[in-house]
Amino acid sequence: MENEKKQKIVIIGGVAAGPKITAKLLRTDLNCQIDLYTEEDMISYSACGLPYFVEGLIEDPKRLIVRTPEQFEEKGANIHLGKRCTKILPEEHKIVVVDTKTGIMQEIEYDKLAITTGARPILPPIQNFHLKNIHTIRKIQDGIEIRRKIREESTKKAVIIGGGYIGIEMLEAFYKNGLEVTLIERDEHILPIFDPEISDLIQQEIINISDGKVKILTSESVIAFEGEEKVERVITSKGNVIETDIVLVAVGVMPNTEIAAAAGIELGVKNAIRVNNRMQTSIKDIYAAGDCIENFHLVSKNYCWIPLGSSANKEGRCAAINMAGQYDSFPGVLGSAVTRYNGLTLSLTGLTETDAKKHGFETVCATMTKKDKAGYMPEAENITIKLVVDKRSKKILGAQAIGCGDADKRVNTVASAIMSDQTLDFFLHTDMTYAPPFSTAVDPLLSAALVISNRIYGS
Amino acid sequence: MENEKKQKIVIIGGVAAGPKITAKLLRTDLNCQIDLYTEEDMISYSACGLPYFVEGLIEDPKRLIVRTPEQFEEKGANIHLGKRCTKILPEEHKIVVVDTKTGIMQEIEYDKLAITTGARPILPPIQNFHLKNIHTIRKIQDGIEIRRKIREESTKKAVIIGGGYIGIEMLEAFYKNGLEVTLIERDEHILPIFDPEISDLIQQEIINISDGKVKILTSESVIAFEGEEKVERVITSKGNVIETDIVLVAVGVMPNTEIAAAAGIELGVKNAIRVNNRMQTSIKDIYAAGDCIENFHLVSKNYCWIPLGSSANKEGRCAAINMAGQYDSFPGVLGSAVTRYNGLTLSLTGLTETDAKKHGFETVCATMTKKDKAGYMPEAENITIKLVVDKRSKKILGAQAIGCGDADKRVNTVASAIMSDQTLDFFLHTDMTYAPPFSTAVDPLLSAALVISNRIYGS
Repeated sequence: MENEKKQKIVIIGGVAAGPKITAKLLRTDLNCQIDLYTEEDMISYSACGLPYFVEGLIEDPKRLIVRTPEQFEEKGANIHLGKRCTKILPEEHKIVVVDTKTGIMQEIEYDKLAITTGARPILPPIQNFHLKNIHTIRKIQDGIEIRRKIREESTKKAVIIGGGYIGIEMLEAFYKNGLEVTLIERDEHILPIFDPEISDLIQQEIINISDGKVKILTSESVIAFEGEEKVERVITSKGNVIETDIVLVAVGVMPNTEIAAAAGIELGVKNAIRVNNRMQTSIKDIYAAGDCIENFHLVSKNYCWIPLGSSANKEGRCAAINMAGQYDSFPGVLGSAVTRYNGLTLSLTGLTETDAKKHGFETVCATMTKKDKAGYMPEAENITIKLVVDKRSKKILGAQAIGCGDADKRVNTVASAIMSDQTLDFFLHTDMTYAPPFSTAVDPLLSAALVISNRIYGS
Repeated sequence: MENEKKQKIVIIGGVAAGPKITAKLLRTDLNCQIDLYTEEDMISYSACGLPYFVEGLIEDPKRLIVRTPEQFEEKGANIHLGKRCTKILPEEHKIVVVDTKTGIMQEIEYDKLAITTGARPILPPIQNFHLKNIHTIRKIQDGIEIRRKIREESTKKAVIIGGGYIGIEMLEAFYKNGLEVTLIERDEHILPIFDPEISDLIQQEIINISDGKVKILTSESVIAFEGEEKVERVITSKGNVIETDIVLVAVGVMPNTEIAAAAGIELGVKNAIRVNNRMQTSIKDIYAAGDCIENFHLVSKNYCWIPLGSSANKEGRCAAINMAGQYDSFPGVLGSAVTRYNGLTLSLTGLTETDAKKHGFETVCATMTKKDKAGYMPEAENITIKLVVDKRSKKILGAQAIGCGDADKRVNTVASAIMSDQTLDFFLHTDMTYAPPFSTAVDPLLSAALVISNRIYGS
C-alpha cells in the first residue's frame, strides 16, 4: 500500500494529550503523517512534577520530560516547536500557525485535527501584577525561575494566593525550602473541592505539621500588590498587609479554547471544548483531548471540567484510536485526585456530600478516623475516610481520604467500585487484603461502609 | 419485656470470629444471654500480629489483645476461659465442656450455637518432633517462647519449614533478629499461592534483600530432626543436613472441626465446616464462622478453604445478625491477601492464572514491571503487577502485585472491581488518582489492563 495517500494528522499542543495521541497513533495507524505544533520550545513534560522540582526533590528539570521531540521524530512524527496556532479553518481543513520567533505565518492542511491546547493559569485582577517576583506555575521555565528565587538568600517570606491542589503542592515546596509562607484562599476553606469539615481537618493538619512556618487565611482575597520593582507586600480584602519576597498566584486554570471557539467549535462548562465519548468535537474531523476539553462525570451524569493529567492520557489514547479509523469510547471521569502536604495525603473520588446534594442525591455519609494499620504496629497512623452513598439506590457516590502514605489507594478502591455502579451491599463485603503492617482486620473503608449500612438498615 | 425468656447463645472459640459474634450480638440483640467458651486462657487476640511481636516491633504481647474478657463481661457477655468443648449434642441443644485444669465436665444448654474453633498448625510426620526448640506458631504463648529463644546468645541459626505467608513473615522476624535462616519449601516455589513466575520473582527478591543471611530450598522437605535434647540438625529429602538452633514448622493449618464432624455437621473442602450464606451449618440452630468454615469463592464459584482474619470478621458479623433473628448474607471471598518481607509487599486477589486455568477459564494475562510513582520522584520503586482476565467474558479474574509499600492497595482496587463482576473495558477506564508522589499518569494497574486489551482486541 506504499502508494496509498497518507492520512494527514495535525495536532495542536504538546504537553500531555498531544504527545499521547502521537505516541498511540504511531503504534496504531501505520499509514498517517503526524505533525504536532506547539508554541513552546519543548513537548511531553510533566507539569504535575513542577512543585517537586521547585522543592528540590528533582535536580534536573529535563527529568520531567517524558519524551523528547527527537524520540518522536525517530519514530516518524514531525514535531514543530515554537509554532503557535492562531486559527482553525474547518471548511478548508487547514490551520494557521505563526513562528513565534520570525512571525512568519503558514497554512497547514489536515485530514484530521486534534486540539490539545491544555489550560493556563487564571490571572485575577490584582493591582500591580507587573511587579517582579510574582509568579504563576505551568511551564518548566516557571519552575526554574521560582526555584532559583526561593533559594536566594534574600527570599525568606512567600505568599501563595489560592489553596487548590497547586497551591498546596507549592506550599510544601516553599515550606521545605525554609520559607515562611502565608496562603490566602478566597473561599471559606482551602481545598474547597473537599467537604467543608474535611477541608477544615486538612487545614488544621497542615498547620500542625508546619512548625509555625505556615499561615492560612481563608475568606480573604488579595486586592493589590505593593513594592518598588519587586513585590514587597500584598494587601488583602480584609485590609491585611503581608510582607513578602515572592508571590505565587495559583487561583485556578482556564482552558485554552479561544481558537476552537473562533472556529465555531461548541464549548461547554467553563468554556472547555465539548466532545463526545470518541473525543470528537462538534465539527467533523476535529478531535480534542486533555485539559482543554469538558468532561462527563460518571456519578452526577452531568458535564463538568476537571482537568487532570490522568484523564489527558486516557482521552489522548481514545482520540488516537478513533482518529486512526478504529472505535474507542471514553466513558467519563470520577474526578479522582490526590495531593500531598509534608507527608499528609489528601485524596478524593466521585462526589462529595456537598456536590451530591447539589445534584439532588439524598446522601447517607460516614466519616471515620481510624488507624490505617493494626493499632499495635509502630507505623500505624490515623486515616480519616468519608464515604458518600445515595440513600435511594445505595450506590456509592464518592470518597475522601486524609492520612499518610497510601490514603489515595483506598480512594482508588472506591473509584473502582463506582466504575460499575456498585452498591453499598456489595462494597461492604469486598474482600480486601489484611495483614497487620497494611490494614486493620476490618479495613477503615469497610468500617465506614458498615456505619452507613447501620444508618440505612439499623444496626 | 424484662420477663421474656432470654435467647441462650453459646459460642465455642475465642480468637477472632467468636469475639466478633459476641461484640455484634451485644449491639444487635438486647435480649440474649451470651456464653463464650474457650480452652485458652485469653480471647480476642491478633494471631496475625505474632510475627511482628517475635520480630520485636511490639514489646508487650498484651498489645495483640483486641478486647479482654473483662471488657466483654462489662457489656453483659459471659466469657469462660480454660473450658474445652468436647461434644456437641444437637438433639438436646447442649454442648459438653471440660475444665482444662480440674477435668470437671459440664453440660451447657443453648438455643443457638456458634462454632468458631478456628484452625491449628499441621504437624507433618517428621522424625524426632519431640526435640526441644521445634515450634509452631498460633497462640500468643508460642510467640513469647520463640521470641525468647531467638534472642538468646546461643541461637544463631534457624530453619523454617514451609514457605507460605506465616513462613515468610517469620523469616522476616528471624532475619531482623540477626539469625541465619534456611527456609525449606516442599513445593517447587515458595508462596505457591502465586503464579510460578511471580513466586520465582519473590524468591529472587527475598534473596537480594537479605545480605546473604537467608537460604531458600524448594522441592525439598524435611524427613528428620536430629539432636540430643534440643534440635541440632534437620535432614532433608535430598539428603541435606542443615545445622540449626531453632526450627519453626509452618507447613499450613487445618480447621478444628472434629467436634463438629462428630456431631454430624456437614464438612466441605479440607474438612472445613460447610455453611450457607447466613453462616448456618447443616444442623438447625448451629452456626459457624472464621477459620473453621469453608468459603465460597466469588470468582471460581466453587467452594474453597481460605482461612483469613479479614473474612473471620465479616463472617462473625453475618452470623451474629442472623443469630439475632435478623437477615444478613455473606456472599463469599476473593482470597485477597498480603504479606511483607523486609519492606517488600506481596499481595494477591481473586484467581491466579494457574487457578483460573484449573477452573476452565481461558485467560489473557499481562505482567508489568513499572515505577510505582512518577519516574523522576526519588522515592519511585518498581512494582510488578499481573492481571488475569477471562477471554470470553472479559471479566477481571484476579491480580497479583509485588512491590514496596502500598502494592496491596492496588490489589484492593482490583478486588473492588471483581466484587461487581467488572469487565476489562470498565476497568481500564477507571479514574484513578494521580500525582507524581503516588502514581504514574497511567497507573501500573491500567497499564496492565491496556496490555490485555491490546492482546484481546489488537493494538
